[in-house]
Amino acid sequence: MTKKFNNRPIGIFDSGVGGLTVLKEIERLLPFEDIIYFGDTARVPYGNKSKSTIVKFSTECTLFLLKNKVKMIVIACNTSSALALEHLRNVFTIPIIGVITAGVNKVLSLNSADKIGIIGTRSTIVSGSYEREIQSFNRKAKVYSQACPLFVPLVEEGLLKGKIVNQAIDMYLKRFSKNRVDAVILGCTHYPLLKPQISRYLKGTFIVDSAKEVASYTKTLLLSKNLLSSNKYKGKKIFYVSDEPMAFARLAKLFLKRKIPTPKIVNV
Amino acid sequence: MTKKFNNRPIGIFDSGVGGLTVLKEIERLLPFEDIIYFGDTARVPYGNKSKSTIVKFSTECTLFLLKNKVKMIVIACNTSSALALEHLRNVFTIPIIGVITAGVNKVLSLNSADKIGIIGTRSTIVSGSYEREIQSFNRKAKVYSQACPLFVPLVEEGLLKGKIVNQAIDMYLKRFSKNRVDAVILGCTHYPLLKPQISRYLKGTFIVDSAKEVASYTKTLLLSKNLLSSNKYKGKKIFYVSDEPMAFARLAKLFLKRKIPTPKIVNV
Repeated sequence: MTKKFNNRPIGIFDSGVGGLTVLKEIERLLPFEDIIYFGDTARVPYGNKSKSTIVKFSTECTLFLLKNKVKMIVIACNTSSALALEHLRNVFTIPIIGVITAGVNKVLSLNSADKIGIIGTRSTIVSGSYEREIQSFNRKAKVYSQACPLFVPLVEEGLLKGKIVNQAIDMYLKRFSKNRVDAVILGCTHYPLLKPQISRYLKGTFIVDSAKEVASYTKTLLLSKNLLSSNKYKGKKIFYVSDEPMAFARLAKLFLKRKIPTPKIVNV
Repeated sequence: MTKKFNNRPIGIFDSGVGGLTVLKEIERLLPFEDIIYFGDTARVPYGNKSKSTIVKFSTECTLFLLKNKVKMIVIACNTSSALALEHLRNVFTIPIIGVITAGVNKVLSLNSADKIGIIGTRSTIVSGSYEREIQSFNRKAKVYSQACPLFVPLVEEGLLKGKIVNQAIDMYLKRFSKNRVDAVILGCTHYPLLKPQISRYLKGTFIVDSAKEVASYTKTLLLSKNLLSSNKYKGKKIFYVSDEPMAFARLAKLFLKRKIPTPKIVNV
């Protein structure tokens, strides 16, 4: 018997482990949904690669999830959302959402957030996607963008606080502090793990965590399309990676605060 | 007319830009040799990936260089030397050398270097390759290994000195300092750029720069096989990458202290 379409899993992909911050918020908000997560750990990171390469890799991730009969796809990777979302929407008919629109909607809903900071990988920042999306709705907004290439390796080293972290934050965010930005979007899925330190450094600045926002965007979309699961038990989570499943499982604990079974390896 | 075999270029590959430290030493020592360099920037870094993935990627790099009619191959990447060299030698007949044996030979030639430190990427350190190779020649040697995953992103951010660099060095190398190691092998092609700071931190410790050692190993090999170029003018250097040629050219300046033409993109 084929599964009812609305009881199919949600598909999530990311370049690696960072997208688990998105999975965590989705499972908190939509506990009955099954989820298939794919982390492209053989080719991680995406953040320093070109648009054509990211479109190619993202298409392969999407095809893998479609083969696994998902009902919608969440691109948990900011770089991929910035550079490949439009292409994927043109090619595939299934609903696909990214983290950027979600973060931007949140920041636009804030009162008097006219000076907005964006932090992300080099490719995300260079793409100008956040900036364009914000300014298409609020032309008066002043947007400050900053690539923070050390943040991902710091998180993956398990360094979430301490001297090195504080100095990296100071190096990258001094300009935000000087210009007294009203809000900052964490434009990379690893960054929520540094949120406590970033908040402390940018006192009084509203921090937008895209992971949370994309989770509520996912819920809204499933509701509006009548696609919520009818199951009434905790959804199943299945994890796939393209390399190093043990390292993924180890890092997953840092992101999810719980153990996961070792993911299966797939070639995409 | 086909080129005489000894006038064919030397092929060098690396996961990205780091192997340019090797190219620089080879061109210093062997100025008349043509060189083809391939940096696999679409899949960089290799240092956190599995053996089977690194063997696959390294085989593809080798095939690309063979298509370009090189006379020998230098694997400028430590991770690939640690995990794929043996496999490549079993599969291909052309001379192939890696950076590990070169570094180990140097350290073994030092008098009374009994406490030896190795630093590298996580995959290089986990492979135990340096340790095995050292101990097969000097069973009394005490080897201290340390993965330093922040060093590559620091170098790629252009951070070669300053507070963050010093703190990362202190975090990783404290144990070497405490145990008074006699010599340290820089087991990753990015690390020579941090050599001044590492030397300062580990006063009195001999620092082995694998890039220099593999260059003299290359010369010895070409001499012994009668394969030195007969040209008497400065050798041509051609650069290829699998992604982001502009970023490669920008970083190349940091490594080579000169400008290079923008590399060509190839799919491997």
